[in-house]
This record gives sequence, C-alpha cells and structure tokens, in this order.
Amino acid sequence: MMRAFYIGRFQPYHFGHHKVITRIAEEVDELVIGIGSAQKSHDPNDPFTAGERVLMLHNALEDLSIRHYILPIEDVRYNSIWVHHVAARTPRFDVVYSNNPLVIQLFREAGFCVKESPLYVRETFSGTEIRKLMIAGDEWKHLVPKPVSDVIEEIDGVTRLRNVAKSDNNSSL
Amino acid sequence: MMRAFYIGRFQPYHFGHHKVITRIAEEVDELVIGIGSAQKSHDPNDPFTAGERVLMLHNALEDLSIRHYILPIEDVRYNSIWVHHVAARTPRFDVVYSNNPLVIQLFREAGFCVKESPLYVRETFSGTEIRKLMIAGDEWKHLVPKPVSDVIEEIDGVTRLRNVAKSDNNSSL
Amino acid sequence: MMRAFYIGRFQPYHFGHHKVITRIAEEVDELVIGIGSAQKSHDPNDPFTAGERVLMLHNALEDLSIRHYILPIEDVRYNSIWVHHVAARTPRFDVVYSNNPLVIQLFREAGFCVKESPLYVRETFSGTEIRKLMIAGDEWKHLVPKPVSDVIEEIDGVTRLRNVAKSDNNSSL
Amino acid sequence: MMRAFYIGRFQPYHFGHHKVITRIAEEVDELVIGIGSAQKSHDPNDPFTAGERVLMLHNALEDLSIRHYILPIEDVRYNSIWVHHVAARTPRFDVVYSNNPLVIQLFREAGFCVKESPLYVRETFSGTEIRKLMIAGDEWKHLVPKPVSDVIEEIDGVTRLRNVAKSDNNSSL
Amino acid sequence: MMRAFYIGRFQPYHFGHHKVITRIAEEVDELVIGIGSAQKSHDPNDPFTAGERVLMLHNALEDLSIRHYILPIEDVRYNSIWVHHVAARTPRFDVVYSNNPLVIQLFREAGFCVKESPLYVRETFSGTEIRKLMIAGDEWKHLVPKPVSDVIEEIDGVTRLRNVAKSDNNSSL
Amino acid sequence: MMRAFYIGRFQPYHFGHHKVITRIAEEVDELVIGIGSAQKSHDPNDPFTAGERVLMLHNALEDLSIRHYILPIEDVRYNSIWVHHVAARTPRFDVVYSNNPLVIQLFREAGFCVKESPLYVRETFSGTEIRKLMIAGDEWKHLVPKPVSDVIEEIDGVTRLRNVAKSDNNSSL
Repeated sequence: MMRAFYIGRFQPYHFGHHKVITRIAEEVDELVIGIGSAQKSHDPNDPFTAGERVLMLHNALEDLSIRHYILPIEDVRYNSIWVHHVAARTPRFDVVYSNNPLVIQLFREAGFCVKESPLYVRETFSGTEIRKLMIAGDEWKHLVPKPVSDVIEEIDGVTRLRNVAKSDNNSSL
Repeated sequence: MMRAFYIGRFQPYHFGHHKVITRIAEEVDELVIGIGSAQKSHDPNDPFTAGERVLMLHNALEDLSIRHYILPIEDVRYNSIWVHHVAARTPRFDVVYSNNPLVIQLFREAGFCVKESPLYVRETFSGTEIRKLMIAGDEWKHLVPKPVSDVIEEIDGVTRLRNVAKSDNNSSL
Repeated sequence: MMRAFYIGRFQPYHFGHHKVITRIAEEVDELVIGIGSAQKSHDPNDPFTAGERVLMLHNALEDLSIRHYILPIEDVRYNSIWVHHVAARTPRFDVVYSNNPLVIQLFREAGFCVKESPLYVRETFSGTEIRKLMIAGDEWKHLVPKPVSDVIEEIDGVTRLRNVAKSDNNSSL
Repeated sequence: MMRAFYIGRFQPYHFGHHKVITRIAEEVDELVIGIGSAQKSHDPNDPFTAGERVLMLHNALEDLSIRHYILPIEDVRYNSIWVHHVAARTPRFDVVYSNNPLVIQLFREAGFCVKESPLYVRETFSGTEIRKLMIAGDEWKHLVPKPVSDVIEEIDGVTRLRNVAKSDNNSSL
Repeated sequence: MMRAFYIGRFQPYHFGHHKVITRIAEEVDELVIGIGSAQKSHDPNDPFTAGERVLMLHNALEDLSIRHYILPIEDVRYNSIWVHHVAARTPRFDVVYSNNPLVIQLFREAGFCVKESPLYVRETFSGTEIRKLMIAGDEWKHLVPKPVSDVIEEIDGVTRLRNVAKSDNNSSL
Repeated sequence: MMRAFYIGRFQPYHFGHHKVITRIAEEVDELVIGIGSAQKSHDPNDPFTAGERVLMLHNALEDLSIRHYILPIEDVRYNSIWVHHVAARTPRFDVVYSNNPLVIQLFREAGFCVKESPLYVRETFSGTEIRKLMIAGDEWKHLVPKPVSDVIEEIDGVTRLRNVAKSDNNSSL
C-alpha cells in the first residue's frame, strides 16, 4: 500500500491542483491532501477559511478514484519543525509530491522521498492570478471546478476578497 | 440539507462514539466530526496523534451512510472564542450534538442549536476506562471497532501509553 | 502626582476588592486597575469574560473619587517577564498595592515599590467562595456591589457558571 | 441605550480620530474605543506602547460628553475570529463605526450593524503622515490634541521613533 | 566523534545531575546539555530563570573533561514535535541519555539511540526534595555543588522560592 | 567583574562579528553572546538553525581569551518586553555592545548601559552580502572563520539556502 502526501493553500482550489491530484491518484493507493495555512482567511492572499476550503476540496474530489484524506494544516512558527508538525497531523505517508522548493528541501532534509509533480503549470493556473481576476471583476470561473465556484458564490467570496484587498497597511487590525 | 457537528477527543475512538455517530447519521444529511485537542499526543490522557486518530475514524466510518468530514481541531487559548475557532475550520453546520456541558453552553451562547446526544453511556464506554485497561494489561479491544485496534497495534500504541503514563510531574519535558 | 497599580481577576468583583480600592483612593492621585487573566472565561474558576468584568468595574467605580484606568491584562507565558508585560500595557505607576505573594515578589525583584494592602479579608470576601455559593444556589448578591449583580443577571452568569462547572477533565474542549 | 464600538491603532491619536469620536458621541449613549495592535510598540509603524496610548486617549477624551471605555485589544492570529476576540474583551455593543474595509467586512460577516464613519479624512490627518513628520524633524504638534503631544514629549517619543526607524531588515531582534 | 545529549530542568542543578554528567563524560567525546522548560521561573516547581540555571551549570561544569554545550530549551506545545524542536536548537548528537520515560519514548519513536542513565538515584538527590528543604528552612547546600549554592545565594533564591510557594490558585497572575 | 552582552543573528557568523567580539574580549571579563531569532531557519534571510549557529560560534570562539556563554534567544512577540525576555534567559550583565539602533533604544529605555561597538564595518562584512554570494555561486569562504565554513559544508548549507531562496510568496508553507 502506497500513500502519498500533497499540500497546497488552495486559495482557491483550481484546475492546476486538480490535474496534479488526479495524476497522483493514478500512481498511488491513498492520498493525504494538506490544506496549508489553515489558520488564515479574510486576507488578500488568503481570502477563504479552512472550512470553506475543506468544502471546495470535498466537493471537487467526490469522484476521485482513490481513498483520500483532506486535512487542514496550520502554519507553525519554525520551518525547522514544519515537516514533523505535518507528520503528527496526518496518517503516515510514503512519498511527497511537491513543486515548492522550500517544501521539497524540508522534506528531503527530514529523510522523506519527494517527487516533483510534473504537470503543474503555474502560468495558466495560479491562485494569485485567479484572485486578481476576481478583484478586477473579470472571468475566473472557467479556471476552477464547478463545485468550487459554487462554494465561493454561496459565501459571496468575491465581495469579501475585494473588501479585504482594499485595506492598506495602516489598517487597524 | 441538514448538516450536523459532533466533537470528541477520540483517545481512542470507541463504540460509545460509534453508536452516537451512527444514530446521528439517521437524523441528518451530512456530519462534520471534529477531533478535539488535535495538537495533543504522547500524554497519559491523550496518547494518540491527530494523524493516528484521523486514521481510526476514517477506517471505522468507511461505511457510514451519510457524507462526513473528519477534521482535527486544535485547542484555542480562550473558551470565549472556541466556537468561532471551530466554525472557521469547518463547513457551516446547522445543529450541534453534544453531551459535554461546556460545549453545550458555549454553542448555545453563540446562538447555535444544540441537541444533547441521548445514547452515549459513559459508564460502559469511556476513553478514560479504555486507557486504564491498556495500562493495566487488561482486555480492551472489544470496546473499540476492529479498525481502531488495528491502528493502535500498528503503532504499538499500548507500549507508548504505558511509557508516557510512567512519567511524573518532575519530568524534564 | 502619585499613580498606583492594583490587580485582581475580579471573578466577580466583590466588596473585598471594593474596600481595598476605595482605601487606596484616599492615598494616591490616580489608580490603574488591572483585570488579570483577561483572556479567560467560561471556566469554573474564571466564568466571566474581560468585557463583562470591564462593565462590572466601570459601573461599580463610577463614583470613585480619583481618576482611574480599568485595563484588561492577558496572562503571559513567563512569570519572569510578567511585570514588564504589565508595564507596557499601563500608564506608568509609582507604587503597587497587592496581597498576592507572587505579585509582590515579581514587582519587588523588578525594583518597584510595593505596599501590601492591609484591609483585604479573604475569609469574608472571596471570589472562590462567591462562585461556590452561585453553584450551590445560595445567596451571594450581598457580597458584591449592586451594579455587579446586575451585570451577572443580565448575562445569566449563574447558569453559565453552573454549566461550565459540570464539565469534567474528559471534556472534549 | 445604544452603545457603539470604534477601533484604531492611534499611533498616535490625532485630530482625525478626535473628530470621528466627538461626532459619534452625538449619536450614541456610550462608546467603546478599542486600541488595536495593543501588543506592538518600538516599531516604525507602531512606536507607542498600549500604556502610552491609553494615556493619550484618557487625557484627550477627558471631557467627552458620553460614557466611554478605552480598551487595548491585542492582535489575534486569525482574521476569522478577530470579531469574536474583540467581543469577548469589550462590553456588548450595538453598532460599529469604521472606515477600514477589513474591519467592516469582518463585522458584517459576523452579523453586526456597521456604519462607515463619514468624516475621517485620511489625507489631512493620518498616523503615517505624522510619523513621517516626526522622523523628518518637521512640525506635527498641530495635528494632535495638546494632551497627546504632552505624553509624547514626556516619554521622548520622537527620539524613540527616529531610532527604531533606523533599524533595517537585518536587525538582530 | 561521539556526541551525546542529556536534558534536565535543573531546578536546581544538584549532585544527582552532576554524577550522571561526569559519568557520561567518560563515555562520549562531547555533551549537549539541555536546560528544559527554559521559559519557566518564579514558580514553586520552577523557581529559577534560564539565565540563572545557565550560570549554575557553567560554574559547576567548568572543569568537565570534555567539550560541552549548555543550551536552554523552551517547552513546545506538542509532545509529538518536541524531539525535532530539540534537534533544531542543538548541534547534531548521536545518543541520548535519559531516565525519563516520556523523553525515552519520544526519542525512540523518532529513531534516536537512547541509553538509560544508570546512576541517577532519585530518592537521594531530587529537585523536588531540595525545594522542599529550602521552603522548610532546612539544610540543602550539601546536595548541590558549591558554585550552585553561590548562585542561589547571590539572587536570594530561597526567599524567592518561599514567596512564590505561598501563592494559591486564586492568585491574580 | 564586568560581564558584557552582545547579540547577532549570525546567518552566518563572519569576520565582522569576530572582530567585534575579540575587541570586546579585551575590555571585559566575561561575555554573553545571544544568537537572535533562534527559532528561525530554512528561510532566505535566516537559513541556519540555532543548533547549527551554536556550533559555528563554539568552534570559531574556542580560543577566545575570556569566559563566554553562547545562548540562543528566540524572538518575542512584543518589542516592549524584548529586553526583559533577554535578561531572563542570560546571566546578569553590566553592559551591552550593539550597533543596532533598535537594540540600543530598547536597552537604553530599560536603563542599561549601552556601548556602540566601533569596529563593525557593515559594508565589508555582512550576512546579507554573504548569503547573496552563496546564492550566486561566488566566493564567500574568505569572509568567515574556517570552522564556520566547515559547519556550512557539512550540512550542505549552500544548497539549502539556494532552494529556500527559490520559494516565492505563494509557497504553500
């Protein structure tokens, strides 16, 4: 039995993530999906809560062919123990899929097997890009699975993002 | 669509929890299950990590009739904001099932609908009792679903519990 | 100009505190009142929120003869820096009034002038005692200023205290 | 009885804040004033401690016509629970006055009534602008109430601000 | 080159610790000594600051035959990552000496080589016992190296311990 | 007996630090060296762990003429209490050497004697500069003591730095 780990912030979950996950699902038996920076929300770079992102992924992955676990992971104060923080919150896994150099470095130093996920094309599908489209009032729904845009609509997520993006550094929070 | 919330520490998940959850599943459409005190482990009262408990529940609830979400919830420093901490990490729910007076009080003050779960019989099924049996070397496997005892065996959880239970208050940690 | 500091948890504010404060008010020009453990609430020993305690003290001290500041102070993780944590959150003060040996020791080590407040009679007026009376359903209102019992009634504080006191150590929070 | 809430960082308290507060005082019965980011100080954007800001506001608002509460509010790690963090530390309020889009969004999502405070003119009165004038050695006292410049002088606040503004990103703190 | 790790709270450092450390020094080339619960002080079980304990160990171990590192280690919120928290703050070590069952369990689960330190006789030499003697006003100096009692005298540590031991659970801290 | 305090982040320890420390060693009897931001690592500005930096300093300072203490100091959330946080973790010192304006301001406000260390030439020796050289693949070893480059080589620190420097703001950590 081979269990893999994949992590993203999923702000929001989009077809870039979806392609990677469906590809990984062809290679392994089970997949643990970490929702990173779970404590963040209502921020220009992190508009959606962990609960909202859980819902996006559950809905979008309902038909994924393999067993999968969707687990929010809060940030931890030290990079040096982040891998172990993840490991304590997840079922034991055998391999890590990532394209993030920091994630790769940390897991490799801790002795994990890491595969760089080959498909992920940041130019076409990117959370940053999608959030910009949302703020500008442009089309973005074709970049995410239908269940994801449904969740965002239900919570009026675009209005939220636009409002929090207006706050400057001198905001009183 | 009616979505319910139920929370426990699940140290370990046992037939008391299982009865409540299968009963709730007859009354609602979806169920969010919070794994409380997710940050704790290797402690006489909290021997298992969040990841190990995630595995126990996933395995034991594989055939649950309704859609369910299994989500670790870390403790928060203030009781006054615990409900909102939970709410930000979970899909929106309509009703809370609990027998814990503090949980009930906190959700009621925050305006949630709370149902006291009627079945739960603490005398027969209790995490405290099961941990005592484990430490004493007595029989405990009949009190938990088979997938749960499998997980505990795989991680040699009983040895761990016995060792951490030996540490006294002057321990150097 | 002589400014004094006095701190208590005020769970709830009672005539014991009130006597000390009115006596201090005869000796100094201004008084900074710290509400300690401000982050705690909904706990058998700490049932009321900082906001509720702010209201108790504001109302009970409306006619205090001297200028006073009512400031919540959260606990800090280390005793060694607690005094400086307090100092950074309060207008500068010249003298500390306390009967708590730890508070006295910490302020003295930091070079502050400390006076032990002579009046405070713990046997007659004590938060612990008042909370016990509340839980038992006995008379307690004669032990606190009228504005304090008004606040507690408005929030149905006695019911809250009774409910949170019922939770045992195995509670899921 | 109508109680309002208004929050700012007050680094320092200036006539922009003062105008808003005196205008709100004409519309409500009581006002809770939160001092945001209370834990910050000795930073180019946040030079003054909570205690120093408490003193600025107490002195500047001595003659405010309505009852008011001046309460430091520390930042909390998650935007999603910030509103509830505020609510637990303050007397219950009925309406929120703010011009900060994030504050407005968070309170509105939590079901609070929010009024955008109409007067506040950021161009003329701004903490950022005043801190720049202080660092440059230019005139700034006409932009704040007299009791505020008195507090800043007494603590030699301008020297402090200039020194902390000199530290670069490689500072050892 | 063989480097070992040994950890204690050293409240205070006594001949029990000293015997273990001098014995370990005969078996390895270098020794990393962790001062556990470094953030604690001014508490009946943890009266001395990390800085004071650093001084005790530096002075008492001045003539230790091997190279050694004396490093304060703060507690971390999760047992599951404590080992990795330690590892990130210390030079890499090959073997752990401990008699604490929790420490042994955690390092063994993380794959470290652990030796139980054979000499340590808790009955005769124990921090708990020494603190009791200090509070009672009995003889305790014969149980610690001379440089340790010198440090404790210089800071008037016995008076501090007695005062903090007087504070009860209703203390305002 | 005169004991001094000097603090740096030492990312990595270089000849600039080394010159200052050997010069201070001529003026005082003992030196406490704080390793600042001890909790950070695996970051473009802070690539090395506290444990690795402890090793760099121990090795580079083996022949320092005076007694010295090498102590990691974690960051604290508030500038206002940083000095007291340092003081609780270190043997008592009489004088602080620093060129950092924030460090100087904080220690001076707390009543400490501060000397600006005259030698330190940031242009020639700077951690920022050395990290840039490492990333670019240029020569950097002549800027640090030999034992420091040995430590960095042993952990393959340059590869680590290059990898973590590649992660952008949208990284999933």
